[in-house]
Amino acid sequence: SSSPCAACKLLRRKCTRECVFAPYFSSSEPQKFAQVHKIFGASNVSKMLQELPVERRRDAVASIVYEANARIRDPVYGCLGAIFTLQQQIAQLRKQLSAAQSEMVLLKFQHQHREP
Amino acid sequence: SSSPCAACKLLRRKCTRECVFAPYFSSSEPQKFAQVHKIFGASNVSKMLQELPVERRRDAVASIVYEANARIRDPVYGCLGAIFTLQQQIAQLRKQLSAAQSEMVLLKFQHQHREP
Repeated sequence: SSSPCAACKLLRRKCTRECVFAPYFSSSEPQKFAQVHKIFGASNVSKMLQELPVERRRDAVASIVYEANARIRDPVYGCLGAIFTLQQQIAQLRKQLSAAQSEMVLLKFQHQHREP
Repeated sequence: SSSPCAACKLLRRKCTRECVFAPYFSSSEPQKFAQVHKIFGASNVSKMLQELPVERRRDAVASIVYEANARIRDPVYGCLGAIFTLQQQIAQLRKQLSAAQSEMVLLKFQHQHREP
C-alpha cells in the first residue's frame, strides 16, 4: 500500500512488510541507501542485519551508514582516517598532560624548598 | 604459472597477471580475503581498488581488511567501536589535563602568596 523503501526503489523490487531495509531506509533519503549499497552491497547488508536481533539493527545501520560515508569521502582510509585523527589527538593530549605533570612536580618542589 | 591468489581461489576463477587482488591477497592468507568478501563483497572491493592509483591500493587494502575484521568482531558497531573507545580516552585525558591545570593554578597562587 505504502511507497517502497529507498532500498527496494533502488533495487527495483517489491517492498514487502518483511523488508529488512524498510524500517531504516526511508524513500525520502535515497542517498543514504545508495552509499551503503555502493560500499557494502545490498545483499551483504541484508545478511548483516538479518544476523542481528531486531533491537540492535538501528545501531548497526547507523554504523554501516557512517562507514560507507567515510569510505566514499576517503577511498583510501575510510573510517581509519577518523581513527588516525583521534589517535593523534590522544598522543597530543598525553604530551600536554605529561608536560603539566612535570611542571607540577617542579612547582611542588619549589614550594617545599622555598627560600624564606 | 603460479598459484591463484586468495581471492581467485575463493571465487574459483583464473588468476591472471592483471588480477587486482593478487598483489594484496596471497593464497597463504585465505582468511584475509574471505573476511573482506563477507563484509564488502569481492566486486565492490575490486571497484574500490580500480578507482585508486596503484600506489594507494596497499593502504586501501589494509584499511578495508581492518574494517572487515572490526565488523566481524563487532557486528553492531564495527569500526565505530574503536572510534567510541578513542573518544572516551580523549574525554578522560581532557578531564585529567583540566584537573592538572587547575592544580597548577592553585600551586602557582600559593607560590606567589606564600607566607614567609
